[in-house]
Amino acid sequence: MDIKGFQFSAVEAAVKKPGRKDLALIFSEVPANACAVFTTNTVKAAPVLLSMEHIKSGSTQVLIVNSGNANACTGDQGMIAAHETSRLVAEGLGLADDAVQVSSTGVIGVQMPMDRIRAAIPAAIDGLASGTLDDVASAIMTTDTFPKMEARSGVAGGTNYTVAGIAKGAGMIMPNMATMLSFIISDAAIEPAFLQQAFRRAVDTSFNAITVDGDMSTNDTCLIMANGMAGNPVISAGSPAAANFEQLLGEVLLSLAKQIVKDGEGATKFVEIRVTGAASGVEAKQAAMAIANSSLVKTAFFGQDANWGRIFAAVGYSGATVNQARLSLSFDNVVMARNGIFAGDNAEARGTEILKQKEFTVSVDLGVGNGAATVYTSDLTHEYVSINADYRS
Amino acid sequence: MDIKGFQFSAVEAAVKKPGRKDLALIFSEVPANACAVFTTNTVKAAPVLLSMEHIKSGSTQVLIVNSGNANACTGDQGMIAAHETSRLVAEGLGLADDAVQVSSTGVIGVQMPMDRIRAAIPAAIDGLASGTLDDVASAIMTTDTFPKMEARSGVAGGTNYTVAGIAKGAGMIMPNMATMLSFIISDAAIEPAFLQQAFRRAVDTSFNAITVDGDMSTNDTCLIMANGMAGNPVISAGSPAAANFEQLLGEVLLSLAKQIVKDGEGATKFVEIRVTGAASGVEAKQAAMAIANSSLVKTAFFGQDANWGRIFAAVGYSGATVNQARLSLSFDNVVMARNGIFAGDNAEARGTEILKQKEFTVSVDLGVGNGAATVYTSDLTHEYVSINADYRS
Repeated sequence: MDIKGFQFSAVEAAVKKPGRKDLALIFSEVPANACAVFTTNTVKAAPVLLSMEHIKSGSTQVLIVNSGNANACTGDQGMIAAHETSRLVAEGLGLADDAVQVSSTGVIGVQMPMDRIRAAIPAAIDGLASGTLDDVASAIMTTDTFPKMEARSGVAGGTNYTVAGIAKGAGMIMPNMATMLSFIISDAAIEPAFLQQAFRRAVDTSFNAITVDGDMSTNDTCLIMANGMAGNPVISAGSPAAANFEQLLGEVLLSLAKQIVKDGEGATKFVEIRVTGAASGVEAKQAAMAIANSSLVKTAFFGQDANWGRIFAAVGYSGATVNQARLSLSFDNVVMARNGIFAGDNAEARGTEILKQKEFTVSVDLGVGNGAATVYTSDLTHEYVSINADYRS
Repeated sequence: MDIKGFQFSAVEAAVKKPGRKDLALIFSEVPANACAVFTTNTVKAAPVLLSMEHIKSGSTQVLIVNSGNANACTGDQGMIAAHETSRLVAEGLGLADDAVQVSSTGVIGVQMPMDRIRAAIPAAIDGLASGTLDDVASAIMTTDTFPKMEARSGVAGGTNYTVAGIAKGAGMIMPNMATMLSFIISDAAIEPAFLQQAFRRAVDTSFNAITVDGDMSTNDTCLIMANGMAGNPVISAGSPAAANFEQLLGEVLLSLAKQIVKDGEGATKFVEIRVTGAASGVEAKQAAMAIANSSLVKTAFFGQDANWGRIFAAVGYSGATVNQARLSLSFDNVVMARNGIFAGDNAEARGTEILKQKEFTVSVDLGVGNGAATVYTSDLTHEYVSINADYRS
């Protein structure tokens, strides 16, 4: 992957325990146009509060991120830690303080081990020459079982550019505005207002359309940095290059979001939920999210049980307008229920076969209007319970 | 238990499969003042739709209830089945059609086996002389592991009366207006308008304050019948007898609601969630329900992990106003966090001891106002996943 003007590093700071690289940097050689969406949880981690301030300039140059400790519910001491981290990175790289974004993920309520962070930052800065984006993708993992990366290349005004992204997820995933952590970088030159619009639209149909367990983190952050080092003519709204960039950006974010669901804690199934026939797009998403978050639906997926009645029940309490006499439901191309009732015994056997697949689509028509939405979810398994009953030990 | 003028029966109709009594009657020898709350799920089972019509008279005389089949998502055929069931019971007992309430619980989307229901109704009517409320409590069980009953006796104008109730729950429990199924009977004479007010208030702080898995059923019903056969002077609002009746009714409902949580599918813990310091009572309940429904919180309870950070995260996304700098949290009398941050290492060990108990209380102060609410929940366990991945087989 050739992405100009970005450097990476990952080092071991032993934030939670020794044995793996858990502190990483993404550095742009020049200031990058940047924007971010953060958790809408009112209980926000210290680094989120700090980064929300720093991003207001519309520009950033470096991201420091650690796994192992969320620096959330840590009060004044947590804010002091986030500020110090930001300052040490800025000083080490000769930047203004607000050119730094700080992200953290891990356990909540424990103070950051600042002695070890302090000690590790110089090595992280020194390592920038030799690291890769893959190193960062690995360093931000917590209960993730694989690093999540995606990249696309485009052309603007005859110049090649790249959009690449990494993400981490696994648990506490039902972003309302952003996901756990995802960092997108591009060497394209992009007009800031368009960057922000395109980014928000892409987040909406990717990270805001996934759910693993319905829990929203205190630390969710999705950040994009575009440094213009590809040398293309600036991409602004309304141009063919803009449409192409937005397409590529959407593909990168959707790929990362799907990777998060596929790596959902304990997940054995990847399920696409498509709701159509809703009174509005908002109601379609409401219904889709109710299905995607229902413990009874998710355990039925795990059990490969074509229990479509639980899906109708979830739709019924979602708050979306439903025409019960016109409700229909399919697993992939097998119609399970039509006009509110079971489609027949043959459907049962065929639907069960669909649910034995690792990936399938649930389509529900609410029979009301033209609103549609798609969300992505996983199943609820023994492994999810094991991971989360035992996460801190 | 001496409750005048009520008769009971339970017979085997083999609704789902043979081997247990699954069809039951509660019959009042005279018309009883009655009211009910039903599921707010827009996908309502046929018997719910029928019973909503029949209860409009403010009076009922007999309830027929089956387990094994919910008669939900069954379309016109399901409505015909509910009507026929009601008619057969009315004819058998020489009553008007709308004197019958019909309730069903079990699998969704399967048509009722009306041949077997038809055949069993005469035996159910014949059995009324000899059955007990216990028989009905057992007949309505699905994945419940024990029958749920409670009774209290009161005095009005020198006359003794009784309030008794039964319930079934276990899964699909997060009523918004009623629980799965609960039937309350009393031989007291009670003025209808007061009966309705007292009943709704009691439901609000009992069945509407519990959650097992956040799923709301298509069949939730809570019905009360008061037949006046105790011969007491009619109890009406504002009297000491009314206050006493409301107290007893509240105790019966809260006991049944707690029994449902204790018998929650796979539950190993019974947890009381008390939220105080909220901007309003509504926000307090919002925060308490977010905690009570969080998969991450519930798995931590199962793991006996004093992971209070997950509780703060749930409060943060609940939508309730939170003063993060004044948030506090206790497990029983052990303060885990104060002013938004961890109370210290000793708390960790002591909190873990609390979570090893079968029952404990989580108290959260949002630090904003005077709103308070209490809800009851269980943990999320391997057994829950097993039961629900495998419920229909």
